[in-house]
Amino acid sequence: MKYLLSGGAVLLSAASATAQGAQRPNIIFFLVDDMGWADSSVAYGDEVYPMNKRYHTPNMQKLSQMGVRFSSAYACPVSSPSRTSLMSGLNAAHTRITDFTTAIPGIPSDASHQPDALANDVLIHPDWNWNGISPVSGVDKTIQVTPYAQILKDAGYYTIHVGKGHWAAAGTPAASPYNLGFCVNVAGQVAGKPVSYYGEENYGNTKEKWSTFSTMNLTEYYGTKTHLTEALTLEALKTLDFPIKNNIPFFLNMSHHGVHTPITPDPRFVQHYLDEGLDQGQANFASLIEGVDKSLGDIMHYLDEKGVAENTVIIFMSDNGGNSENKSKGGVLHTQNAPLREGKGSCYEGGIRIPLMMYWPGKTSAGAKVDIPVIAEDMYPTILSIAGIKDYSTVQELDGKDLVPLITTGSGIDAERELLFHFPHQWKPYQLNDIDYLSSMRKGDWKIVYRHRTGELELYNLKKDLSERNNLAKSERKKLKELATAMSDKLREYKATMPTLRSTGEQIPYPDQLIKKF
Amino acid sequence: MKYLLSGGAVLLSAASATAQGAQRPNIIFFLVDDMGWADSSVAYGDEVYPMNKRYHTPNMQKLSQMGVRFSSAYACPVSSPSRTSLMSGLNAAHTRITDFTTAIPGIPSDASHQPDALANDVLIHPDWNWNGISPVSGVDKTIQVTPYAQILKDAGYYTIHVGKGHWAAAGTPAASPYNLGFCVNVAGQVAGKPVSYYGEENYGNTKEKWSTFSTMNLTEYYGTKTHLTEALTLEALKTLDFPIKNNIPFFLNMSHHGVHTPITPDPRFVQHYLDEGLDQGQANFASLIEGVDKSLGDIMHYLDEKGVAENTVIIFMSDNGGNSENKSKGGVLHTQNAPLREGKGSCYEGGIRIPLMMYWPGKTSAGAKVDIPVIAEDMYPTILSIAGIKDYSTVQELDGKDLVPLITTGSGIDAERELLFHFPHQWKPYQLNDIDYLSSMRKGDWKIVYRHRTGELELYNLKKDLSERNNLAKSERKKLKELATAMSDKLREYKATMPTLRSTGEQIPYPDQLIKKF
Repeated sequence: MKYLLSGGAVLLSAASATAQGAQRPNIIFFLVDDMGWADSSVAYGDEVYPMNKRYHTPNMQKLSQMGVRFSSAYACPVSSPSRTSLMSGLNAAHTRITDFTTAIPGIPSDASHQPDALANDVLIHPDWNWNGISPVSGVDKTIQVTPYAQILKDAGYYTIHVGKGHWAAAGTPAASPYNLGFCVNVAGQVAGKPVSYYGEENYGNTKEKWSTFSTMNLTEYYGTKTHLTEALTLEALKTLDFPIKNNIPFFLNMSHHGVHTPITPDPRFVQHYLDEGLDQGQANFASLIEGVDKSLGDIMHYLDEKGVAENTVIIFMSDNGGNSENKSKGGVLHTQNAPLREGKGSCYEGGIRIPLMMYWPGKTSAGAKVDIPVIAEDMYPTILSIAGIKDYSTVQELDGKDLVPLITTGSGIDAERELLFHFPHQWKPYQLNDIDYLSSMRKGDWKIVYRHRTGELELYNLKKDLSERNNLAKSERKKLKELATAMSDKLREYKATMPTLRSTGEQIPYPDQLIKKF
Repeated sequence: MKYLLSGGAVLLSAASATAQGAQRPNIIFFLVDDMGWADSSVAYGDEVYPMNKRYHTPNMQKLSQMGVRFSSAYACPVSSPSRTSLMSGLNAAHTRITDFTTAIPGIPSDASHQPDALANDVLIHPDWNWNGISPVSGVDKTIQVTPYAQILKDAGYYTIHVGKGHWAAAGTPAASPYNLGFCVNVAGQVAGKPVSYYGEENYGNTKEKWSTFSTMNLTEYYGTKTHLTEALTLEALKTLDFPIKNNIPFFLNMSHHGVHTPITPDPRFVQHYLDEGLDQGQANFASLIEGVDKSLGDIMHYLDEKGVAENTVIIFMSDNGGNSENKSKGGVLHTQNAPLREGKGSCYEGGIRIPLMMYWPGKTSAGAKVDIPVIAEDMYPTILSIAGIKDYSTVQELDGKDLVPLITTGSGIDAERELLFHFPHQWKPYQLNDIDYLSSMRKGDWKIVYRHRTGELELYNLKKDLSERNNLAKSERKKLKELATAMSDKLREYKATMPTLRSTGEQIPYPDQLIKKF
């Protein structure tokens, strides 16, 4: 790994760190939806890519200079698996929540269940927990977990959720953040995306646009020009007032709907992207990104103003890679996460490698870059560790690792740790080769990809081939076997859901059963 | 006045009262919507009326035995004026919020603005603050006020709003409880009524039932059999968890949608009312009442269980009289608040006299009944007084009086205080003689009623004629003149909105200008 210290980095002395330790740090988890690894001016990689030059994201830039950024941070290919991994500390193959949770219980949400897919695919979808997580047992199609928000709340943290939830189906407990350990919920529910970003459209709460998904609790902005990203930010700042004034440590889950579809222009920011020559879709998307950047800046400014910035940890993250299969984003489909391959839904890097930054004043080194791979489920023990909560009990045994040693000392996490990604689904109503029915695993510089439909295994060296174009499965047999074995072990350990081959009626093989073919 | 002590009443010694005083009391303001004075088994009057015998409300009964009940408590004829009076400490004639606030800014909500009324009435409606209250200045059609919830929050109270808001229009700040000083908001917004009480109907959040008014933030109950009253209660109890565990004093604004229209059966309770011979509408309404009673009981049980009951004040109140102009309630229209005349919308007793109970453990006398008239705007200084907050500044000068001396010692409020009710509106799309365009004032045992359309003044002695059937305007000229003068003074002092006579284009006379006619 690299742990680069910028020139201005200052490590606190043990004495002052201890003094600060008396006061538990506030924590802001700033989660963006569908933001790709290269979707900002922050260069998470070794190079500044053309995409990095497109976006005006001065606040993300500032945060990257204040804290550490991760070149190899991962989440799941789609939203709910990531969000439930975050909240459970479990890998998505382990929660068996591998696609987006349904809004309506009893109706699975994955396209694999659509009549076309059922009739025509070579695979039959596996069963999975389409109702998401649950804080209690006995809820159909859920996995019971102890949410970290509950542990924070029980430890006296004032826990606030603002924005997108998407942890569970309507009619189940985890549809409500209040059941996950949040003291306050603004707008969090079962919706996976906003119906409209516009106050003028009541964020979708109109007869014409009706959907269960309309963002709730924002009537004060109805009919105004307040963009959803701005509205959620304003609401978040309001909720911080009480804990700050009363010196109660807070945890804010600032969970933006931006930059998910619908990719519509944020009028505050779109024009200069058009002026710079982007097409309308690209400019619209960029304007959503810049809106989220402003939100981050507004929150950082608020912390400064209230005098709590020095005791507030900020974690900035996206829930999956950028969408590469949506024409409304403009550009050319399947290239929008360049240099990464593919995008949302896919177990190639474009779908799972995400922006991640952590800033812990006085603890993290300013401007440092961490190359050791980390994954969404690591956030659970990390957040509790930051909060100083050591002994806690959970119904689940955590898969994630505490990243505090890594972000404060640069060590403590095995660079060769195996990170599993599993998407046993068809994502869209139509089939997509590089997105549907894939699993992959990263181990050090290496990555294996398993195509469920064809039984193919691919091997990439990400250090040399970030774009996953050079399949080394045939030339690096030993490494392939090592990763196929490791991946199979994990899939079995997690009791991962596996599709069935329509032709035989049998479950698809584990990768180690395929290895002799190569 | 009477201040009756029941046999079991015990007044705390000064010593123990002081010891308890060290810990600020929690306060629960339990507000029912559209519940009439006689709509429970609690006898607020001197007699047990037939209506009191209809309802099974053991928890209200229990509360009345634990605390004090008011025989002569008043609110406004409709919801928003009462709710904004409560939140501002101002009389509704003073806020100029005299009818229900609009959902959509710029579109006044009162029926007086409907084309029929505009064309055919002898009166032209006055201008008024149909956008409700606002915590900031410069919002069209609002009055700026300092909400008591803000003062409580600033003093360190953990302020929670659950349920109906209805303080302001969409697109204005007070649409959101977060702008009124609440730390937590569950479901409060611009809606004046629920779209559906049924979880099976997503509380109205379906394409078929769509309305801006659907109760928000309850997706966890979608598709379940959880009645709205139950859902809001469960949510409220969840939000109490944090302040109780962390020993933070809390204020809970438990603001039920029940028992407003739609008058649909609560399946948990409806059958025994049918068995007892009520018609379907009456049974449906009674089942809503009993649902609210269960909510009260569940909250009291929760307080006991958590060990905070002894330090929690409960105020139980309705926002206006029972609806007497809605066929879905069954029975005979305009008789449903017997022995009181008329109902919701009216300045006769049926519209404005409401159930009110206060229980402050160790402070109020068990089972006592207070006959001194009190009014909604008194709650503002009373709640702050209970919280021990003495010095606070408000942009408005309060009209309400602190009732703490009254509920703890039986004195401190002038029994001859003048209480004004003002409804310069047509309530329904059709004209209603005993409801539309009325003002009234209570002073001691006496009450004056002013009919705006006809210029008639009526005088009643409520002590002898609770049902306002014996108009003494002609026989008690001196008293009439006294009350007409007092009422006119108040209307002028408050700069109350007054309708215009279509025939002359002039504002209707103040009552003292009419007195020579009598």
